[in-house]
Amino acid sequence: MYNYSKEKLNELKSELEKKHEEYKARGLALDMSRGKPGPDQLDLTNEMLIHCLDGDHLSEDGFDCRNYGILDGIPEAKRLFLKMLGVEMSEIIIGGNSSLKLMYDAVVRAMIQGVYGGKRPWLTGGAIKFLCPSPGYDRHFAICEKLGIEMIIVDMKADGPDMDAVEKLVSEDEAIKGIWCVPLYSNPDGITYSNDVVKRFANLNPKADDFRIFWDNAYLVHYIYEEVDSLLNILDECKKAGKEDMVYIFSSTSKISFPGGGLGIMAGSANNMKLTREQMAIETIGHDKLNQLRHAKFFKDYDGIMEHMAKHRDILRPKFKMVLDTLDSELSGLGIGSWNKPSGGYFVSYNGIPNTAKRMVALLKDAGVVMTPAGATFPYGKDPLDRNVRIAPTFPSVEELKSAMEIFCNSAKLAAAESLLAQ
Amino acid sequence: MYNYSKEKLNELKSELEKKHEEYKARGLALDMSRGKPGPDQLDLTNEMLIHCLDGDHLSEDGFDCRNYGILDGIPEAKRLFLKMLGVEMSEIIIGGNSSLKLMYDAVVRAMIQGVYGGKRPWLTGGAIKFLCPSPGYDRHFAICEKLGIEMIIVDMKADGPDMDAVEKLVSEDEAIKGIWCVPLYSNPDGITYSNDVVKRFANLNPKADDFRIFWDNAYLVHYIYEEVDSLLNILDECKKAGKEDMVYIFSSTSKISFPGGGLGIMAGSANNMKLTREQMAIETIGHDKLNQLRHAKFFKDYDGIMEHMAKHRDILRPKFKMVLDTLDSELSGLGIGSWNKPSGGYFVSYNGIPNTAKRMVALLKDAGVVMTPAGATFPYGKDPLDRNVRIAPTFPSVEELKSAMEIFCNSAKLAAAESLLAQ
Repeated sequence: MYNYSKEKLNELKSELEKKHEEYKARGLALDMSRGKPGPDQLDLTNEMLIHCLDGDHLSEDGFDCRNYGILDGIPEAKRLFLKMLGVEMSEIIIGGNSSLKLMYDAVVRAMIQGVYGGKRPWLTGGAIKFLCPSPGYDRHFAICEKLGIEMIIVDMKADGPDMDAVEKLVSEDEAIKGIWCVPLYSNPDGITYSNDVVKRFANLNPKADDFRIFWDNAYLVHYIYEEVDSLLNILDECKKAGKEDMVYIFSSTSKISFPGGGLGIMAGSANNMKLTREQMAIETIGHDKLNQLRHAKFFKDYDGIMEHMAKHRDILRPKFKMVLDTLDSELSGLGIGSWNKPSGGYFVSYNGIPNTAKRMVALLKDAGVVMTPAGATFPYGKDPLDRNVRIAPTFPSVEELKSAMEIFCNSAKLAAAESLLAQ
Repeated sequence: MYNYSKEKLNELKSELEKKHEEYKARGLALDMSRGKPGPDQLDLTNEMLIHCLDGDHLSEDGFDCRNYGILDGIPEAKRLFLKMLGVEMSEIIIGGNSSLKLMYDAVVRAMIQGVYGGKRPWLTGGAIKFLCPSPGYDRHFAICEKLGIEMIIVDMKADGPDMDAVEKLVSEDEAIKGIWCVPLYSNPDGITYSNDVVKRFANLNPKADDFRIFWDNAYLVHYIYEEVDSLLNILDECKKAGKEDMVYIFSSTSKISFPGGGLGIMAGSANNMKLTREQMAIETIGHDKLNQLRHAKFFKDYDGIMEHMAKHRDILRPKFKMVLDTLDSELSGLGIGSWNKPSGGYFVSYNGIPNTAKRMVALLKDAGVVMTPAGATFPYGKDPLDRNVRIAPTFPSVEELKSAMEIFCNSAKLAAAESLLAQ
């Protein structure tokens, strides 16, 4: 569309506006704002709500999971995730239902009490800054914003964050205490960090002795196709570099079993986990062990999880196909936007020409399709180029996605036409 | 024993030591350290692990409880606790499995972000102090100690904390930001705050505009006998005084359904709850709604909870009777200790003569009975007179309690004899 004459652009704009009115008239009400599994995915785990405990309540070592006690998880629940995360029993904590909460709590503990090996709480050392590879996960950024942590944008490249920038920044500024990472099928770009990027992370030389990598491995078994990306084990790499205390790993079963009814997981060096357990022991007597038992009995082991994820994959594949096929057929070759073709995770990330994202999201909303707010994938909700829109294809049905993506593409073209005409 | 001659005391001491060796030889291993329900109590709720959901997952308004969403609780779970707590729908938040975590989180939010109506976060105003009616709940005090909050002891009287002291302290010192209260069947004394005390709480004039009463109503339906204590509704009283934002209320089903597998509850003014929801929305996408649905379906309503509590009561009554009867028959009239006779809650609190509590707990441990550490019921674990020992009668069987209490009384007498001889 870049080489279109003003006349042709105006003509196109009128057509697109007409189409937009037609879409509006359909009265759709679709929500593509969050990475929520669809009901068909949740049905895969329904057995856990029917026969999974059948009154059982003893862990494998005879502990009564109905009662108080066991702060960091029953053994069979921990073991369930060891291979998945590549960690040992001493390196894992099973938390409540939310890995986001585990991350928030880890930040707060570091702020008020300090991290293992740190000389003082983050808060007593003046300003606190986090590096935020962007676009990224809006809820990571929201934690920083709410807690008064200054966010510094680092660009995302095809193989992970711009490591030249990361290395330089952390080595120069003692106020930089952390970095947010979604290393496998990143939110929203679906990028997997290369071996080189992971190794560079493990070998960082932060000026702050209490710096932590927040490694949110949210999509670690969330493949869409047979062919899967591989990610180096960050804890192993950190150990090789003698820096095993530098990383906190997070994950959950939110998109394996039930979002909100699953298990949050934290992992890291034995030192980090020991201090976390000590700090956590003040906050709670323990997490829900009955739900841990449910998960251990339902999934049994790593192979059980992988078999289950294959069923999720079968449901997700046609949805991602519908999104990508529609983008291809409607927008390819127009030069007004690009998008990733992820092989895992929960999102497709669309980048339009500058100054079109907000307008697109407004047009979509006008036609009954709710998207994540434009800018949400950047710190402070401000996309510097106003061009990134996150598509979450998992919740709607394939039929609904077809309608939604037609509107998406029309909105993309209309916003682009308006922007080009305004130049 | 006060009027015994030295000779007679020495004779008695030898007898008690001999008995102690006999108890030791029995090789008991009993844990009376925590207020844990017994297995027979947990069996009362087993249906929740068998048929309670049967695959159901929709809340009454059709929301899929398996998925993300609904931060502060499904309507039927909120409604379940309205009458119990005496609050409205806008005044309640259903949290995760731990009310302790809700309290810790509320303290942390106040420290870093501030409370409703406060001018700044607690942390930016210098030192933070809490009033701690003592003896009290060790885990309240542990939160303060871990977070660097200075604790000021306030004495407990027969009808609640010493309100003259509370009123004076909060009105004079702006650094005092909170007070811990267990207003009904207090931990460990089993004291219920009188109407006068509750009214005086509701009418406090704290110097700090961001002061909060932490009202931990942990035992609000936990009666032992037919006859029950009544407690004024603190939120209603605060409203009458125009100070409804001054109190945070906490409760849980930990000792109604399952400890660790129940529901934590926070309640308070609409303003407080609104801000808490906004702050909580950054920390988590929501709590476990499936467990909320389980509870709503199992208990149905307030009457369902009260019927259930009557079953708990039937199990607890003989246990408290065994403890109190043994204390009566073994220690009455000796003048070496006193104890409360609670009509609810989870503890019997024993006060010996000064400098005997640590020794008693050591003797008990030596004979195979683990008690809460002496001093734990006071801030910093330091009982100024070293005389309070908390008895938790709920977990052992009645038979086990019989043995444990014989050892308890022998230890009490031996520690007292030693102390009197040393004077």
